[in-house]
Amino acid sequence: MTGPRAAIVVTGSELVRGERSDLNGPFLAREALRHGLEPARITIVGDDPRELEAALAEALTAEACLVSGGLGPTHDDRTVEMLARAAGVPLVLDRALEREIEAVSRATAERLGRPYADFAPGVRKQATRPEGSLSLGLAGTAPGLVLRTSGGCVAVVLPGPPAELERLWPRALETEPMRELLSRTRPPGRRVLRLYGVSESAVARALEEAGGDGAGVEATICARDLEIHVDLVVEPGAEARADALEAAFVPKVERWLYGRDERGVEEHVLALCRARGFTLATAESCTGGLVAGRLTSVPGSSDVFVGGVVSYADDVKVRELGVPASLLAAHGAVSAEAAVAMAHGARERLGADVAVAVTGIAGPGGGSAEKPVGLVHLHATSPEGDLGRVLSLPGDRASIRARSVVAALHLVRELLTRSREEAV
Amino acid sequence: MTGPRAAIVVTGSELVRGERSDLNGPFLAREALRHGLEPARITIVGDDPRELEAALAEALTAEACLVSGGLGPTHDDRTVEMLARAAGVPLVLDRALEREIEAVSRATAERLGRPYADFAPGVRKQATRPEGSLSLGLAGTAPGLVLRTSGGCVAVVLPGPPAELERLWPRALETEPMRELLSRTRPPGRRVLRLYGVSESAVARALEEAGGDGAGVEATICARDLEIHVDLVVEPGAEARADALEAAFVPKVERWLYGRDERGVEEHVLALCRARGFTLATAESCTGGLVAGRLTSVPGSSDVFVGGVVSYADDVKVRELGVPASLLAAHGAVSAEAAVAMAHGARERLGADVAVAVTGIAGPGGGSAEKPVGLVHLHATSPEGDLGRVLSLPGDRASIRARSVVAALHLVRELLTRSREEAV
Repeated sequence: MTGPRAAIVVTGSELVRGERSDLNGPFLAREALRHGLEPARITIVGDDPRELEAALAEALTAEACLVSGGLGPTHDDRTVEMLARAAGVPLVLDRALEREIEAVSRATAERLGRPYADFAPGVRKQATRPEGSLSLGLAGTAPGLVLRTSGGCVAVVLPGPPAELERLWPRALETEPMRELLSRTRPPGRRVLRLYGVSESAVARALEEAGGDGAGVEATICARDLEIHVDLVVEPGAEARADALEAAFVPKVERWLYGRDERGVEEHVLALCRARGFTLATAESCTGGLVAGRLTSVPGSSDVFVGGVVSYADDVKVRELGVPASLLAAHGAVSAEAAVAMAHGARERLGADVAVAVTGIAGPGGGSAEKPVGLVHLHATSPEGDLGRVLSLPGDRASIRARSVVAALHLVRELLTRSREEAV
Repeated sequence: MTGPRAAIVVTGSELVRGERSDLNGPFLAREALRHGLEPARITIVGDDPRELEAALAEALTAEACLVSGGLGPTHDDRTVEMLARAAGVPLVLDRALEREIEAVSRATAERLGRPYADFAPGVRKQATRPEGSLSLGLAGTAPGLVLRTSGGCVAVVLPGPPAELERLWPRALETEPMRELLSRTRPPGRRVLRLYGVSESAVARALEEAGGDGAGVEATICARDLEIHVDLVVEPGAEARADALEAAFVPKVERWLYGRDERGVEEHVLALCRARGFTLATAESCTGGLVAGRLTSVPGSSDVFVGGVVSYADDVKVRELGVPASLLAAHGAVSAEAAVAMAHGARERLGADVAVAVTGIAGPGGGSAEKPVGLVHLHATSPEGDLGRVLSLPGDRASIRARSVVAALHLVRELLTRSREEAV
């Protein structure tokens, strides 16, 4: 990558202390990349003025400096003051901006039943900005701004709440300094390959055997809950090289390839059901509702997904899914037999065409020599046939559950992409 | 805060590009804070050698420099090389470490059916470390290490996978350079207050009226899915000041205070049920299984939680929860009446003592003037009484669902903490 460098500065005491995960840095990095800038670093600092000024001064050596947070009305919110200092420009009070913030603050004061005088100093502070900067308008009472420094860096300052930051960002892109900067970039292409059922190292080897990355094509291979995500970032001019790499790589991994876009497996499952006119139900034990939760995260899933049973207790497996108590006594609740009975029970009881069942031991307790923590049985059933699988998953409770969810959804995907002949 | 500064450097191309959220920076920041170090900044860089060297050089000006990632066997993994360069010390091959990594790599080569010769260069690379550094042993094939620089900074280098980093970190704390550094720190105390049902600004005002923070007590107030989390970081010597602040603050917010530790609301709900010998069931529509998922995230939840029904389709509400079709026709599936019937149905059908139901419109579609997106009805029932609530939630689908989960669990908590007299 050879685009202009973008340095990202995120401020927030709770972020630098690790009390909360930062979302703004990754958002701004993805946006920078998409517009042909090279995200060089993300720096997270608290409200200590020296740390903040140092981080901003470093970031201003890049072609773009994208800053989030520290725009509030209190004395701890020092981003604008420190940016002006780092850029070597004076602060000026923007009267028009002051009136704009005053209107919002008066409404807030009224709603809270407090005198406006409490707010006035904060309003003045928030209406003060570096000379020569452009206001992006308000999100809440915090104004975003863009400043081109004498050193040629375009600094964009946005409020910390992610929704507000994301709302003002498009306005920053439309300012003259950003348009001028982006006129010099050549946004890269991106190709996405999604695989399941293969190891990260096998994918890395296949990619290497296909010619590997380099020469304008940069590959990242990422393992996420049993899926392998391969992304190719393609510089302008390297499209033919990327085509050749893909053409050599895809046949080596075709067996495991399930997607060439960013849709999650739950979206694939819903689309496959929808295409056949099938409805879908779930029966979950160790995943405790997370398979259903993942399916219903997709807007409009209700035309396919009818519902599910979280059968945590054996008694609920019997009552709600019709699993025979004798089967549970003979094989245990974590068994292939129980998974089959749960899937069939969900299909019948909930009146669905397709159903998937998960039963396993998520730990940390409940394991035995015969049935250790991480043992998970899955079963999927459809009018076209059935498919079962047993997994032995490493990791802690959260990771075993997350992987079981992904595996259950892929089992349905596989069942619905097999032909009738293949399905058992 | 006045502890020695800790600078954190996280490396990873996928992190600086925003493709994945960093977990290691927040973990190391929390650990630093807990041991009396002041986390001054978290810097995320990719594998560009200049960016990495610059970030490390800056970080080495702090008293502690905590680094994650870039320890793998390939040429893109440059952390050790760049650390040696930034610290001005030569690299040396550690023969004992080489034998240790070789043993792991030979086993891997055998498992993958590949010649060990493929691995040998990587093994040599991973066994090379800055002169004077201490090895922390291996996590996978990546060795962690500790180096005290001539400038007096203690640098700790740990592998990027979070589980491996967290495994090696305690060993770093036991090394002589870290013990010496930490002998000079005075770890702060931490007090935790968890509130529900009150606004962030009202809590901020109450804290200010109680005397506010400062003088060795630092307060952070954080809104998270309708909960308000207040943390007080207390410097050694400021305990009496913190006691006074708490004593003045707590009475102002007692109505909303549900916890004075970090347990999530699901843990409170399970504990309240367990204390009364009650079992618990769920009936979910718009949250699609996430209430059950949250309850079952707690190890040992199976002694209380028996299961739940995700009744996404109306037909499932009728079949599985016994909600009268006539009730749905008269009031709609998103109604107080439906929530009551779902909760009672779950209690009876699943044979539980306590049940909670959620039905709402998570959007983006499905809303109307009368029943807009964000309208959510909740109902909880127990042998001691019932409690219902209606919410009008802002935000997108994910945020409406997340807040509904939290609100549903708090409704159960409130029902079980009220006396019999109070419950309706």
